[in-house]
Amino acid sequence: MPSVEIVAVGTELLLGQLVDTNTPFIAGKLAENGVDVFAMHAVGDNRERIADMIRAALQRADGVITTGGLGPTVDDLTKEAVCDALGIDTETHEPSLRSMEEVFVKSGRHMRENNRKQALIPRGSLALANREGTAPGFVATTAQGKFVASMPGVPREMKPMLTEGVLPWLQQNFWLSEHIRTRTLHTIGLAESEIDHRITDLFASLENPKIAVLAHQFRCDVKIMAKATSVDAAIALIAPVEHEVLRRLDGHVFGVDEETLPFAMHVLLQQSRRTLAVAESCTGGSVAAALTSVPGSSKSFAGGIVSYDNAVKMKQLGVKREDLDRCGAVSEEVAKQMADGVRQNIRTTIGLAITGIAGPSGGTHEKPVGLVWLAISEASGLRTRRLQLSGDREGIQSRATTAALGFLWETLSRNR
Amino acid sequence: MPSVEIVAVGTELLLGQLVDTNTPFIAGKLAENGVDVFAMHAVGDNRERIADMIRAALQRADGVITTGGLGPTVDDLTKEAVCDALGIDTETHEPSLRSMEEVFVKSGRHMRENNRKQALIPRGSLALANREGTAPGFVATTAQGKFVASMPGVPREMKPMLTEGVLPWLQQNFWLSEHIRTRTLHTIGLAESEIDHRITDLFASLENPKIAVLAHQFRCDVKIMAKATSVDAAIALIAPVEHEVLRRLDGHVFGVDEETLPFAMHVLLQQSRRTLAVAESCTGGSVAAALTSVPGSSKSFAGGIVSYDNAVKMKQLGVKREDLDRCGAVSEEVAKQMADGVRQNIRTTIGLAITGIAGPSGGTHEKPVGLVWLAISEASGLRTRRLQLSGDREGIQSRATTAALGFLWETLSRNR
Repeated sequence: MPSVEIVAVGTELLLGQLVDTNTPFIAGKLAENGVDVFAMHAVGDNRERIADMIRAALQRADGVITTGGLGPTVDDLTKEAVCDALGIDTETHEPSLRSMEEVFVKSGRHMRENNRKQALIPRGSLALANREGTAPGFVATTAQGKFVASMPGVPREMKPMLTEGVLPWLQQNFWLSEHIRTRTLHTIGLAESEIDHRITDLFASLENPKIAVLAHQFRCDVKIMAKATSVDAAIALIAPVEHEVLRRLDGHVFGVDEETLPFAMHVLLQQSRRTLAVAESCTGGSVAAALTSVPGSSKSFAGGIVSYDNAVKMKQLGVKREDLDRCGAVSEEVAKQMADGVRQNIRTTIGLAITGIAGPSGGTHEKPVGLVWLAISEASGLRTRRLQLSGDREGIQSRATTAALGFLWETLSRNR
Repeated sequence: MPSVEIVAVGTELLLGQLVDTNTPFIAGKLAENGVDVFAMHAVGDNRERIADMIRAALQRADGVITTGGLGPTVDDLTKEAVCDALGIDTETHEPSLRSMEEVFVKSGRHMRENNRKQALIPRGSLALANREGTAPGFVATTAQGKFVASMPGVPREMKPMLTEGVLPWLQQNFWLSEHIRTRTLHTIGLAESEIDHRITDLFASLENPKIAVLAHQFRCDVKIMAKATSVDAAIALIAPVEHEVLRRLDGHVFGVDEETLPFAMHVLLQQSRRTLAVAESCTGGSVAAALTSVPGSSKSFAGGIVSYDNAVKMKQLGVKREDLDRCGAVSEEVAKQMADGVRQNIRTTIGLAITGIAGPSGGTHEKPVGLVWLAISEASGLRTRRLQLSGDREGIQSRATTAALGFLWETLSRNR
């Protein structure tokens, strides 16, 4: 399996003005094709520093893939830096020059010297066609069998050049016999340390597939990564480990790979022919928005009421004034009445309610910022859950949204 | 001006499973504070490779800032790698251990050995408080006056640690003599090319401050950047240019810097003592969620109705069945009735309604996916706007949300 480092070139990256999505894209494609990425770098439009970075990377890895710095301006220095690093000079790639000349003739524009520069590639390197732009990419190789592949920084130009140029070249030149497949199990209701505890022996004993735990807000992902000589063999390696992890995390895995929590919810709702309405206070519409992010969600989600004001809680949800006065808007009693009210008013089989204090103000000693009550109403009865969340307003709203969906998912999955 | 390299730690980065937004955020803040970023790197959860990367970076730069790998799992190896690179060992940071113990006692959970590991920092280093999580960060220094600052990878924990811990430390320990200040004007209702046209002469003539236009979904930002030897001098350079840009984009700038469109809306609503309720179909709660993201939004936002199902449109909003049948749910007539209905039912001075086809299915030749009707109802009358949006479901929902807020902001700002 060859190893590669990726170098993104551009001063705007170092100034934080641009989030580099090229490198993750390339890394993902390389991983799928069994290429091991050792490290990723970003460097400015500085010939010496680009060359240094490439030299250092070639010491560690079999090859370097660069993006950016192939344009016509004086700032574009990647080609020159690659030549410096490899101790070679440039030559004109005649087919690229001719096709560039054609483009200029067609558009009636005058071709300048700096455009001509774009047809230069390191001497002896392989040009990579750019079907979305003018500058060709290239793959330059060294006497030691190492390589530097350079592509433009414009994602639209880079992506086809990677899949149609660089990856086939790697396939041909490095007998890519390894395939990597990843299976991601999404869990809810378990802390990262608890998951760690339950599967720690798998971490320690397994080399292939490998397991990793990633913590998100209120939920964790368990990733199982396998390497094999074919995709089928990789999938076969994953299967028994996935089975064992599922057994140990039973009742907490709501989906795999691309399946989101709202998606899992809709599957459960549709399987059991139930319909849902939501009453939200502190989450202000986020739970409804998450549910409606799923295509076809109208089959099981009827609607929601954002009862920010207490008057809305009373009028639209039938919450009793005396209970609002007695228990406060953020209370188990009010959450119950909201859930019942939205289920009855919107005429669904399930009502979900969220009421809490998102902050930054509005907290008291008894009811601090981050206190959230959840309630689920069905014809058969009510369930509630109390949460004490931390973080700023945005964090509390977002965690309350995930927690509410998680509570509902757990409830539905236990009595499907 | 000190120089820094940034190292993001995490195997998921090398696999392309996660786009690193921490590094650009840090780079941006460093640039604002006159710190020169030489290079940025990502490396996997591999103790030796992390240590090698830090050693190499310290050869080139004055310091290294790392994110990630401070968690409780066996994969989290940044601390150990920093110690390897600097040739020191770890010690327990007692205040962090105690506050972690408190958190565990409060939540009734059992503290495991791997949690205890999070309170370790390199011997002699300065601990950085983590006000959003358990693991402290740290700044370790070398005899040569170089430094390594390490922060968690969770953005919510990293961001305050950077601005409240790392940046003040840099200010104190390096005489930061160059200051960069940026002022961002947020506009709505003008295309990028129109803004370009109105201020093109400023682009050409100005070197310091510089101007840049950034297009977002349905709105644009104009950035004015100045460099000076003091913050005050930088601000003074910006002021006259800002004044001129504001004059040329009059009526379209809804906020500056951190001010969001929902924030601007609440300012306008409160200034004019108006209250708002929202009826949403295709945006499914996103408009309400955006409005309630602002602290104190309950002063002007009363609530909303997510009328996903037509039954909800009729029952909760009073939309007439014959108009739903005659015009369809996505129509000017239904949008008007939704806006009137939500205003009257929730008893606010303004009602905002959004109905549209988010897709991917549900479109027809006459009403394609992306068709959206907006309506604003006030006692004085109704205004409507028709949009034809492009993109996938997520894109259409997000653009419809911004467009609805923009339509309301324009309406309110013209008759304040």
